[in-house]
This record gives sequence, structure tokens and C-alpha cells, in this order.
Amino acid sequence: MRQFLDQDFLLNTEAARKLYHEAAEKLPIIDYHCHLSPREIWEDIRYENITQVWLGGDHYKWRLMRSAGVNEKYITGDADDYEKFEKYAEVLGKAIGNPLHHWSHLELRRFFGYDGILNAKTAKEVWDIAKEKLQSEGYTARGLIMMSNVDTICTTDDPVDSLEYHEKLAADASFPVTVLPAWRPDKAMNLEKITYPEYIAQLEAAAGMEISTFADLKEALHRRLDFFAAHDCKLSDHALNYVMYAPASDDEVEKIFRSRMEGKIPNSEEEAKFKYAFMTAMAEEYTKRGWVMQLHYGCRRDNNPDMFRKLGPDTGFDCVDNYAPSAQTAAFLGALEEKGNLPKTILYSLNTNDNAAIDTILGCFQNDTAVGRIQHGSAWWFNDHFDGMSEQLKSLGSLGYLAGFVGMLTDSRSFLSYPRHEYFRRILCRIFGEWVEDGFYPEDYDTLKEIVSGISYYNAKKYFDFKKK
Amino acid sequence: MRQFLDQDFLLNTEAARKLYHEAAEKLPIIDYHCHLSPREIWEDIRYENITQVWLGGDHYKWRLMRSAGVNEKYITGDADDYEKFEKYAEVLGKAIGNPLHHWSHLELRRFFGYDGILNAKTAKEVWDIAKEKLQSEGYTARGLIMMSNVDTICTTDDPVDSLEYHEKLAADASFPVTVLPAWRPDKAMNLEKITYPEYIAQLEAAAGMEISTFADLKEALHRRLDFFAAHDCKLSDHALNYVMYAPASDDEVEKIFRSRMEGKIPNSEEEAKFKYAFMTAMAEEYTKRGWVMQLHYGCRRDNNPDMFRKLGPDTGFDCVDNYAPSAQTAAFLGALEEKGNLPKTILYSLNTNDNAAIDTILGCFQNDTAVGRIQHGSAWWFNDHFDGMSEQLKSLGSLGYLAGFVGMLTDSRSFLSYPRHEYFRRILCRIFGEWVEDGFYPEDYDTLKEIVSGISYYNAKKYFDFKKK
Amino acid sequence: MRQFLDQDFLLNTEAARKLYHEAAEKLPIIDYHCHLSPREIWEDIRYENITQVWLGGDHYKWRLMRSAGVNEKYITGDADDYEKFEKYAEVLGKAIGNPLHHWSHLELRRFFGYDGILNAKTAKEVWDIAKEKLQSEGYTARGLIMMSNVDTICTTDDPVDSLEYHEKLAADASFPVTVLPAWRPDKAMNLEKITYPEYIAQLEAAAGMEISTFADLKEALHRRLDFFAAHDCKLSDHALNYVMYAPASDDEVEKIFRSRMEGKIPNSEEEAKFKYAFMTAMAEEYTKRGWVMQLHYGCRRDNNPDMFRKLGPDTGFDCVDNYAPSAQTAAFLGALEEKGNLPKTILYSLNTNDNAAIDTILGCFQNDTAVGRIQHGSAWWFNDHFDGMSEQLKSLGSLGYLAGFVGMLTDSRSFLSYPRHEYFRRILCRIFGEWVEDGFYPEDYDTLKEIVSGISYYNAKKYFDFKKK
Repeated sequence: MRQFLDQDFLLNTEAARKLYHEAAEKLPIIDYHCHLSPREIWEDIRYENITQVWLGGDHYKWRLMRSAGVNEKYITGDADDYEKFEKYAEVLGKAIGNPLHHWSHLELRRFFGYDGILNAKTAKEVWDIAKEKLQSEGYTARGLIMMSNVDTICTTDDPVDSLEYHEKLAADASFPVTVLPAWRPDKAMNLEKITYPEYIAQLEAAAGMEISTFADLKEALHRRLDFFAAHDCKLSDHALNYVMYAPASDDEVEKIFRSRMEGKIPNSEEEAKFKYAFMTAMAEEYTKRGWVMQLHYGCRRDNNPDMFRKLGPDTGFDCVDNYAPSAQTAAFLGALEEKGNLPKTILYSLNTNDNAAIDTILGCFQNDTAVGRIQHGSAWWFNDHFDGMSEQLKSLGSLGYLAGFVGMLTDSRSFLSYPRHEYFRRILCRIFGEWVEDGFYPEDYDTLKEIVSGISYYNAKKYFDFKKK
Repeated sequence: MRQFLDQDFLLNTEAARKLYHEAAEKLPIIDYHCHLSPREIWEDIRYENITQVWLGGDHYKWRLMRSAGVNEKYITGDADDYEKFEKYAEVLGKAIGNPLHHWSHLELRRFFGYDGILNAKTAKEVWDIAKEKLQSEGYTARGLIMMSNVDTICTTDDPVDSLEYHEKLAADASFPVTVLPAWRPDKAMNLEKITYPEYIAQLEAAAGMEISTFADLKEALHRRLDFFAAHDCKLSDHALNYVMYAPASDDEVEKIFRSRMEGKIPNSEEEAKFKYAFMTAMAEEYTKRGWVMQLHYGCRRDNNPDMFRKLGPDTGFDCVDNYAPSAQTAAFLGALEEKGNLPKTILYSLNTNDNAAIDTILGCFQNDTAVGRIQHGSAWWFNDHFDGMSEQLKSLGSLGYLAGFVGMLTDSRSFLSYPRHEYFRRILCRIFGEWVEDGFYPEDYDTLKEIVSGISYYNAKKYFDFKKK
Repeated sequence: MRQFLDQDFLLNTEAARKLYHEAAEKLPIIDYHCHLSPREIWEDIRYENITQVWLGGDHYKWRLMRSAGVNEKYITGDADDYEKFEKYAEVLGKAIGNPLHHWSHLELRRFFGYDGILNAKTAKEVWDIAKEKLQSEGYTARGLIMMSNVDTICTTDDPVDSLEYHEKLAADASFPVTVLPAWRPDKAMNLEKITYPEYIAQLEAAAGMEISTFADLKEALHRRLDFFAAHDCKLSDHALNYVMYAPASDDEVEKIFRSRMEGKIPNSEEEAKFKYAFMTAMAEEYTKRGWVMQLHYGCRRDNNPDMFRKLGPDTGFDCVDNYAPSAQTAAFLGALEEKGNLPKTILYSLNTNDNAAIDTILGCFQNDTAVGRIQHGSAWWFNDHFDGMSEQLKSLGSLGYLAGFVGMLTDSRSFLSYPRHEYFRRILCRIFGEWVEDGFYPEDYDTLKEIVSGISYYNAKKYFDFKKK
């Protein structure tokens, strides 16, 4: 019988404990993909209570509460902060098997020193402890980041962003953590959206030029890419329905863009052609600049029309989209590679059934430009639970070179989510420990520690090559 | 070394044993989805020998025998009952890894008190024991049900059904088990079938009205829905190829229906549009009546044309259909929700690859109308083996609120299949036990027992809210 | 703690050890599907060093090296043999979780008696040991085969092949191993290829007739089928994108073929129709001749255009194609069965998500013509790692009759790859051992050994019924 969430949480073998405590635990964190607000970091914001920091914008927690039959009043409604927390505590206490149960307790232990169990009975006790801590020194955005031994953070930024807070943070010697922008041009690609023309107008302003053709659009984006590069951006990110292969002539793409500018929403074939042309153009630029391209796909968003109208996007109404033809993913990467325009790339699908397809696609485009030039991103979003992470690691191990993996990211909006790196490292060490104890891999701790510390930290450091502050 | 199928079968931890024996074992069964014949229950039929009760209509067993190379004579042919049983015993003895090996032995233990192993050598012994038991008191349809501690049974009934036996059973105070109809209107939806016009004629007779338009069809079904509601039906069921989203105007749907009535088989686009309109109309009615909607999909039926001709449907020739776009499932539910017409719903796919898609779709439509308003049904049909059930439970745990799950059903045609609830509960307790022993969840037996007993019985009781006899 | 790759490698229970050592270890190998060169066997070739035997044509190893960032010079380039081996040793040492780590070490132990770990430090030592061994008696193609206790080998042969070396081998009484051809007519089917007309010309020459119609093509193939049958061929193999169902009239197919002969590349619908007609015609012939039909699908090949140009096919640039509608697979088999033209068939998909679909399709076409008439082939190519093999076995167990499985094949180009049969047998015994120790299956070693030895050897012997030398 092992104790819930003690120091050896998830570490069920001697080998796992040794690897985690000696090779992973103390390494810094490179959080190369998250949704933290650079402004909040700059302003070093403070939270009044645990509801604000935990439940303010966390759609994972909202979904869980709705699934347990909680009224929306206690989720995004007008109940007071304590009532909301109490409901969450009650639900969490029974959320057996859900990663939030682990994450929330890890956060309570690491940030608030609370070693008990959060549930209906302990809600008040935890509320009070958190309240006191949140008012004490160091419990600010920056303090929480530094408490977590974070080395580098990449935020997620639109091409039109002024990067004002990145500039301020870069200039502030008092804060040692490197905070870099990451380029996410989804709004410039999604021409099927009603709001596309508005966005183009914003981009015109940001780039200081008119955009009337696709060539103009690319030129405007190049200017913004240069601007991001000047702020040490090394990383892009794209949210795609699926990774499409839909070649079209330049003329055809220009015609689709022009037609959209004239107010016509494209059909799905035109949309795919435009997006393919867009992605191809972006990849070429990333390659020129030595950036990494991240592709996130397999998600269908905003599935509840009523709730979308009330709460907007990213509020807990998304699901797995299981349409993602691997043939098109491979063809897209192949077409880039043929022209020398394939950058270092990280693929993430929300559909875990895509693991093996991704891991075998990787193998088609590896070479000596990097260890693990094409990467299978860590289990994404809904999948970053114990089974999902384990499967991603084992699939990558079976089909590729796991020792070259760049590892974990939080993908989070919260300053408290860094223990997910701990969770990941514990799972990694658990798997390795089981392999060693079972005679699947030699008990050679020098090599094992080298691999563990690589996946935990050093591989990402080398792969992204971020400019340190 | 643990003994095969002893009292702690599947319960590999102290925690699992405690949970099963203290919180699950003795709870009654709500079998909310099965294919028992209400007439056979009313008539309280008796079986002459184990072949009749086991092999008479069980296509699971037939498939296994065919897979082992047994001649059809000994399966559905003219061999005598003992010969058939002997063949099954021989095959079963070597059916390592197949759920039938567990189910059959559980049934031998629970109903016939036989603790040995069934195989070629013991066939005669088991035959004799079963024969004696089947002739003794209590070994009738009703007796077997009561022996199994069953509380409520929902059968599967066509809208044209007279519900005569349900009425009789409801009026019979000597039988304490609640037996309710469930509404399964597949034949009214499947307009591509040759026999559709015949069925419409039957429905006209049952509803007491002419059906010449889709509006008429809906009206006729409303009448039958009222009739079923008057017999305390609270549950519907649909077999779909996949959950489709194919909106069309009323006119278009009327035109498709009219054309079918004139003898024209619709093309696949028309078929999808009609079925979508049909499902939309049904869901609206279920919502009005507070019924639960069950959607079963991912199956391709009757794949062996020769055997279909010889034996008809449901004889062991079905397989997984892996076409089920999750985007359409989500869009269907979203369209219902937008109009306030989404009832409590249970989704089942025959394709286990759909687990995560289903579990993330659930989360988009949960609210306070019920704990687990939208449910992921227990591992269905081919998947209700150890691994399939485990995966469904873990996926639901990782992505949703497992504690709110309404649990197991037999989906069976046999009066001996209730031990599948035991099998399910043992697997549930095994998983929880492993989590507790591994430090994944606190050793808090009050909460654990509340969750286990909820999933075993109380959640279904609350969710369906059946009227007790 | 169990030791890496000792005699009980993978055998984590007493039951597993007993089963493996007493019922599996010493059985001969029927390698019914491989890519060995009959000429190399006839010539009894010898390798100068381990690089030649291991890295000469093994695209598994090449992929791994590229994934670890090794320069192509050390893979397929002009580095010398030792440099290449040294790079592989370095990468392999850190290839935790990859099946090559197990396979390579098994090969070092079984063929070279090396019990250590291969990595950067030991590369020279291993190189020297292997070099010495490879120059000693018995380390030739035939010697390595005999060292591995191989009973029967089926190579992979084109219909135009002269089978010259098969004839010579058959006539050579000094070599006791049965080496048979297997029929692989992909080139006669793939009419979309640029090189199709050239191939047809080769086939004309081989069959001694002109081919101007599809009927001619079939006649030419019949002649070659007879020729292969005369050389004791009992087995065919097809590489398909997916198993398609695309019926067309004879006229239509003739028109497609004629049009291709006139130089026109067919569109994708025409291609599917032609291939469906081709496969249907082949299956009919296999049925007549009592041959087994193997269908391999779910692969997208040659995804890296540059590397394809440099290195050609089968060089490590293939991936999983996740488009394989199970409905079409079932429909194809159903159409054959309806006409009495369904031969014994083995289905393999590169996409492990297809496991359950395949295992349920099997069940639709089983009968008494064979135990396991339709088979789910052992985990194929990228999937023949520990998890992939385990999943295939468990899925087949849960959904079918595992005891009737024909088991492992190497699918390999290397004379050193027979330990993959050992790997498979160990995994099989591990799973059975866990089931026994966990009380899932009775501790009845007579039955267990019968099943294990069946899957390891006797089932294949009976199923294929090869003519022994």
C-alpha cells in the first residue's frame, strides 16, 4: 500500500524513485508552450483567494463540475467565490480517475503546503489556508513562477500583438525568468470566420501596409515575423482541424482570398486550399528563421451553441474530432521537405488514436539537423492524464527515439500549473523504472539519468535554443 | 497465485476485495437495457437442458464455435442438444482470453453450483448437473431473474408492440421485479429497407391512423410514445450506423418520405437527411417526456450473405464499422441542445477507438439537469470483456466524472446473463483497488464505497427514475 | 529486480517460465512470410562484418539512427563499416523502449554469444566478436537459418520470377530446410504506376502470351499461378492501401485496363474498381488452389520525396495510413464468400486501431474449413514491439479464438531476425502466465501447453499444410 500523493507519488519501483529524485526533480522547467498573460506577469498580479486563481478561467474544472451536475451559477455564474470553491471541493473529492484530482492536490501541496485531501468536509480549511498564503510574500504571478523553478516561458501571441509586456519583461533585470513570445497566426489563416476582414484590418495597422492580396498578407506577416524575431521568438503554433494537403495554384489562392475580401465565405475545398497555401508559406518562413513549428489538431471547438453565446470560446465545450487523415499530414510535410521548407516541427493530435500515425510520420523526416527534428508533442489537453501521457511516451519509445523527446509543456492559463511538469517527470520515471525492474532495459543509471534529464530539460534547451535573458 | 474464478476473482488487492464485498456484491441489479422476451417472463418458461438455455440463441457462443472450426451442424444445425453442448465445452475449454470463458464459468458457479472447469472432459458431468438443476424448483425464467437479485428490467420493444405481456407482468403481484418496455423505433427510421412499407402498414394499424407524410409518421409515433409512456416506459434506444448530422428542410424530408412510399429507395444522402430528421423529432419527444435516449452505433451487420439467408439477423455475423465522425455526433447533440430538445442521452460505440471522442463530447453538454446528464454507455457487445470494460471506465474517469456513471447493463437475450453485472462490478473494484494501493487515490473507504455503490446501482436508480412496481 | 535479457526475459511469472521453457522454446520455426533472397540462401552467402549483416538493408535501424540525428553518411552513405556500426551502437544504447533494443541484443546473444550491452563504449568489443564469429564455420546464410531451428521459409516472389533458386534449393538434399515461394502480384495490380506497362511486358514474356485485355491479364496470371503451384507455393500476399469494395461490370474493368494500356493513368475511382476486380479474380484462384491469401494494408509509403529519389523504396520513409474503412473490408470478404471464392485469409493492418475491427470481421467468415479460417495476422512491421504484439494477442483473445492463431512471422530481409519468433513466444507466454497467476484462466498446464505450442508452431503447420522437403 503506497500513500496518496506522498513524495514517491507514481514512483512504484526503486529505480523510478532513484531516477526521479536524482535526475529529474530538481531540474528547471522550460515551459515552451503556455497561455499565460505577459501583462499579468509584468504587473505581477496577486489573487485574493483560491477561487480566483483556480476557478477564474479554468475550463477543465468547469467541465468537471458540469459533469457532476453542478448548476452554472456555481461555475461561471454569480455565486460568491467561497460557494464556488465549496462546490468544486465537493466534486473533486469524488473525481476518482480524473487528472484534476492529481493536479489540484499537487498544487495544494506544492504551493500551499496542504497535505490533506480536498473534499466537501475540508473545503473551509483549505480555503483559509490558501487565503492566508495568497496574502503572504511571494504569492504573486512572478513569485509563483519562481517558486516553480521555471527557466523559460513561451506565451502565445497574435501577429498583431505589440509585445509591449515582453519588452518590459525583457528589460527588467529583477525578474530572472526568460519570457518569450510565440507566434500564433490562426486568425490570419481562418478566412472562413465572420470576423476575418476585421482581423485583416488589425493586421494592416500592425504591419503598416495595405492588404488586398494573398501576397500582401504574406508580406504583412513577414514584417510581423521580423518583429517577433526581434523579440527573440523561436516558436510558432497553429491550431488546425487537421493537417491538410490541398495544393492549388497561386492564382487560385489569390482568387479565394480576393473573393473573401469581397465578403464571400469560401466553401470547404477553397478553405482547405487557402489554409494549405497559408501553412506552406508560414513553414517556409519558419525554416528561414530557424523557428520551430507546432501543429495542434484533432479538436472540434465550441460545440454547445447556447453556452458559446453566453460564455464565448475556451469555456469547456470542445471535443475530439476524429477526422485527421494521416496521408495528408505526411503529404504536407513531404511537400515542404521537397522544397527545403520543412522546419523543426512538433505534432500534437487531440485524438490519441493518432499516436502511432504521428510516430511513424516523424520517422519519415528525421535527419541530422536535430536530434528528434520532427517531434511528437506531449499528450495534449484532454490527454495529459496518467494513461494519455503513458501511451504517448510508450508509443514514441516503440516507434521512435524517445531519448530525443523535448518533453512537457503546460499549455495552461494558470500560474499554479507547473506541477504538471512534475507529474510528467514522475510518469516518465515510473515507466523507465518498470522497464528496468522488469528486465526490459539494463540497470545502467548513468545512461538512464542522461535520458531522463534530457527529456525533462536538456533536450528542450538544445532543440529550441532560446536566447536566455 | 490466485485461484481461477474464486470468490475474489479479479479482485487483486485488499482494497478491491473490501470494496466489492462490502459495497457492490449485494446490491440489486437494474438491467436497463436487455433483449429478454416479456412473454417468456410472463410464461415463466423453463428449459429442458443447458443447450437450450445457453446455446439456443446466443450468437456470441456461435461465433466462438465457428472460429474454432466447428461444423455448423453442431451450432445451429440438426445435431442433438448434447452433441452441441459437447462441442461448445470443448471449444470453451481452450478459449483463453475470451469473455465467454469467464461468463460461462460464472454462470455455472452462480446458477448451477458447479465449481469446476468446463471442457471436453467435464462436458457430461456439467450436462448432468445442469439438467438436474433445470428441472428443480426455481429454475424458470422468473426464478433465474429473482436468483440474480434483479430489481428492474427494461426490455427492447417496437413501437407497434401491444405491450400485452408488460401489462400482464405489471398486474401480477406475485412477481416483484419491475419489467418495463423500452422504445426502439429503428424500423420506423430505416426507410432504405425493402420491408419499410410493410412496417409502415403495421404502424398505421397500431396507431389507428393513415400515414402518408412524414408529419403523419411523427403523429403516429407520438401516439405510440404516449402508449409506451402509459406503460411507464422511460427509455428509448436507437441503432445507428453512425450519429449523423444532415439537416434538411421539412419539404425536403417530406419529399424523401413520399418518394419512399412510392417505392423509390433513397440514395445515401437522402437516407442521412431522413434519419437526421427522424432522430431530431424523436429527441424532441423524449425531452418532453423526460425519457433517456440511447444511441448505439459503429456496427456493420449481417456481413455474411449466405448465412444471413440461412439464419437471418443476429446470428453472429456482425462487425465493427469504424466510420463514425465525432464532428457529426457533436453537431447533432449541439443542434438539439440549441432548441432545448436534448434529452438525457447515453452514447455507445462498438468501436473502442471512439472512447475518448465520446468522453469529450459528453463534457460539452453536461449541466445540472442530472449528474452525468450525457453518459458514455458501458463497453458494448463485443467490447464487454475485461480490457474493453477497463478501458471504458478509465477513459471516462480520465475525461469525465466517473462517479456519476450509470453503469452496467446486460444487452442480453439470456436469463443466465446477470453475472455480467458481477463481472463489471469486480472490474470496477479492481481498478479502484489498484488506484488506492498505488497511491493514486486516498484510502478513504467512505467515499470509495459511495462511488462504487453509485456506479453499481444508485446512479442508475436516480438517473432513470423508473416507476417501481 | 529481473536481469536485462536473461534466460527468463519477459517471463515475469512462474507460469510464463514453465510455458515458455517447456512448450515453446524448443519448437521449430515456420517463417511463412519473409523477404529473404532465395538466391542468397542458395549461394549460402557469408558476411564480412556485423555492419553488412545488420545495417546493410535494415530500414528499421536506419530510421532509428536518423531519429537520433545521425548524418546520412553513417547510415546509407560512404562512411566505412566500422564507423556506421559505431554510430548505431551509440544510438542503440539509448534507444529505451524501442524493439530494436531488444531485437539487437537478442541477436547478439543468440548468434554471437555476447551477453553484454551494446553502446558507444562496447562497440569495438562487439565488432571484434562478431567479426570473428562471422568468419567461423556455420556463419553463412544457411548456417544462420539452421542455427535458428527453422523448419520452413516462404519468400516473397513476383509472378514473373523464374523461381530458379527455389528449384535449386528444392533439389539440394544437403539443406534440410523447406524454402517455398509466395505469390505477390502487386505489380500486376498497381496500374496507376508509371512503370505498369513495362511490368505487363515482363509478364507477357514470363507467361508466354500477349496481354491486351484484363481477361488476358488474368489468363497470364493463371499460367504463372500454375507455375508457382508446381513449385509448392501455398501462399499469396498483397499490399493494399486499404481493402476496397468497388464493384464494377466486366466491361467497365476492361475499359479501364485498355485505357491504361493506351497510356492513360486512371483516376482514383477507376483505380479502386480495377483493383477490386483484380483482387476478386485472385481470391477465386487461391480458393481453387487451396492457397492462403494475405492482405497487408494501412501503409503510406515513400513519404520523403528527396530520399525516395536518392535511395528508392523500402529505405525507412513509410508511415501508418489511417484510412481503412472496415465496412469495405467486410463487404469484400462477404462478396467473395457469397460466390464461394473466399480462401483462407490473413488480415494485417499497420494501424493498430484496426485490431478490433479486424477481429470482429474474422468472426463473420469462420467455418469448419479450418480452425481460424480467417486470421488476424501478428502485429505487423512498426507494431511488432512489446505493446503492439500484446495488444494484437489480447484483442484476438477477447474477440476471437486465440488458441487457433497461426502466430509469428519475421517479415524480414535479414538472416539474423529469427529471434523475433522467440520474442513473440516469450510475450505470448508472459500474457498467459499473467492470466494464470491472476486467476483469469485455470492452472491447467496440459491445455495451456497445447495452446502455446499450437500458436508457436502446430497451428501454422496445419493451417498452411506446406509440402515438406
